[in-house]
Amino acid sequence: MNREPSNNGTPKAQPVMTREEIAAFLARAFPEIAASGRVLTVEEVRPLGARVRMAFVATDIRPGGTISGPAMFLLADLAMFVAVLGAVGPQALAVTTSITINFLRRPSPGDLIAEVRLIKLGRRLVVGEIALYPEPPPESSEPPPGTSQPPPEMVAHATATYSIPPGDGGGNMG
Amino acid sequence: MNREPSNNGTPKAQPVMTREEIAAFLARAFPEIAASGRVLTVEEVRPLGARVRMAFVATDIRPGGTISGPAMFLLADLAMFVAVLGAVGPQALAVTTSITINFLRRPSPGDLIAEVRLIKLGRRLVVGEIALYPEPPPESSEPPPGTSQPPPEMVAHATATYSIPPGDGGGNMG
Amino acid sequence: MNREPSNNGTPKAQPVMTREEIAAFLARAFPEIAASGRVLTVEEVRPLGARVRMAFVATDIRPGGTISGPAMFLLADLAMFVAVLGAVGPQALAVTTSITINFLRRPSPGDLIAEVRLIKLGRRLVVGEIALYPEPPPESSEPPPGTSQPPPEMVAHATATYSIPPGDGGGNMG
Amino acid sequence: MNREPSNNGTPKAQPVMTREEIAAFLARAFPEIAASGRVLTVEEVRPLGARVRMAFVATDIRPGGTISGPAMFLLADLAMFVAVLGAVGPQALAVTTSITINFLRRPSPGDLIAEVRLIKLGRRLVVGEIALYPEPPPESSEPPPGTSQPPPEMVAHATATYSIPPGDGGGNMG
Repeated sequence: MNREPSNNGTPKAQPVMTREEIAAFLARAFPEIAASGRVLTVEEVRPLGARVRMAFVATDIRPGGTISGPAMFLLADLAMFVAVLGAVGPQALAVTTSITINFLRRPSPGDLIAEVRLIKLGRRLVVGEIALYPEPPPESSEPPPGTSQPPPEMVAHATATYSIPPGDGGGNMG
Repeated sequence: MNREPSNNGTPKAQPVMTREEIAAFLARAFPEIAASGRVLTVEEVRPLGARVRMAFVATDIRPGGTISGPAMFLLADLAMFVAVLGAVGPQALAVTTSITINFLRRPSPGDLIAEVRLIKLGRRLVVGEIALYPEPPPESSEPPPGTSQPPPEMVAHATATYSIPPGDGGGNMG
Repeated sequence: MNREPSNNGTPKAQPVMTREEIAAFLARAFPEIAASGRVLTVEEVRPLGARVRMAFVATDIRPGGTISGPAMFLLADLAMFVAVLGAVGPQALAVTTSITINFLRRPSPGDLIAEVRLIKLGRRLVVGEIALYPEPPPESSEPPPGTSQPPPEMVAHATATYSIPPGDGGGNMG
Repeated sequence: MNREPSNNGTPKAQPVMTREEIAAFLARAFPEIAASGRVLTVEEVRPLGARVRMAFVATDIRPGGTISGPAMFLLADLAMFVAVLGAVGPQALAVTTSITINFLRRPSPGDLIAEVRLIKLGRRLVVGEIALYPEPPPESSEPPPGTSQPPPEMVAHATATYSIPPGDGGGNMG
């Protein structure tokens, strides 16, 4: 009764957009990202998840040689959007309503990988968690509970909520 | 250079307190929990993680037959503290500095399980994520990235930051 | 176009429930709060805001003589709910979707006051911030920007999001 | 005993850096911001607070003509850093440990103003809240509790935690 139809009805549902379709959608919808010289690559779209890579650009360096917080936020936000697109499709003009990001370690200059996992796929709200790793990602980045190895290289962790507008596509934020 | 000695030096370090030691510590330090009639059980303490069960009590019911948000918060906070004790030990009077909790689904009345994973174990700050599940927990509650099955029953997700006081045990919050 | 009708159309709208009506609603909807021995008093309901007092109870004490984090969370959550009721009314079975709470200082044992301010009142989401103070509250607890006096006694700060179900009263969480 | 010496000892302390000194520090420490074409202006540094303006740049536009979430995050993060510099000074290599941001309304293209208020100034952690408004800011942007007018134009709200490294300037994140 409290289950979310779209999630629980098809718990292993395949993404409704492919990696290539999402990449093309982003290129059309956000041309300013490419124009800014930033390169974000949709590496994988999977059921209720996605992996996105952000290529290192020199302007993201901060004192001490690390990557800026806003650059990590941008990656987390975009990767979440990719996962939402994969789960919901492009007709829904989903908007970010909130993000909490914890900066854990200072990444060295280099590519960053975002791994997204959607933990709620409701009709109106989608909630996901995003883990950022330096490239290359650790081989077993997320051990199941009960095992002893932490993800030694997670540099930031975020939780994000997206609002899915009603079916009329109004795109209202609230 | 940015690595945390206590974490990266011993990434698979065993907990410094056992499950039984932590349970005894909590009983001494928080007698009011038992006095309140609430039963929280430390089920497992593992390297950089823990599992805690909160027995259902009727006073946690909310309209619609679900469990109250504050009760879920209490479980998340205590479970995180258990994991911190396991990793740092009792000499450190760790204090919660912040928690973000997302309520995902309405749990039915029943026990709740908190699974904690510490994602940063610094000298001054410890960050963890806590997933709450109804009992019994799903058999494979956290599939590795790339697999298709979401945790279908996660009812709440939290990220928590604890501050570890300096070695003098001052217990200052900031 | 991006404005929220319910907010911007009536920016100074009076609350749709009085303090007394909200108190009566809470007593009916949450009898377990009173049964627990906890006393929460709706002190004021104002347009897009509310003030709620939580009487000190000995079971909230933590080591060091301070008030427990979960007790502060409970106050913040309930105070936010009071403000939502005042703004939206009882027909809407609003549910908390997320709360971020920062614990700032250790309150001494005593009553706590929650001051709520709604910063978004949308048709589907309500966002508010909650500041907790020890009793008595500072006389000028929130100086306008540009003045020099910080709220010296704020013990915790929270931001909360509530989801307002569609008009059919379904009360779905997502 | 739980009071923070640096805060409570000098609750009305003047900033330790002027607006001009902070602007010069930022220009030296973050040359890539200017290089990116983004213009952020420190408009005011006050005791435990600051105001920073971000000039509109076309690359921040998102579908629908609004300003991107990452751009708003960047402004909130930098404005918080300005307030921390004003309160703590440049010798401390403060680092962001976490930010929670709520996106409330879609800003139209135009400058954005960040108003920062520090709500905790501890020896190790600084916590602040940041409100983002479109330019020009509302005349009475933050009414005291008890008055009826909400800030009608707040487009985003954030809370941020900065970690202040120990006196040796180690700059360790945890």
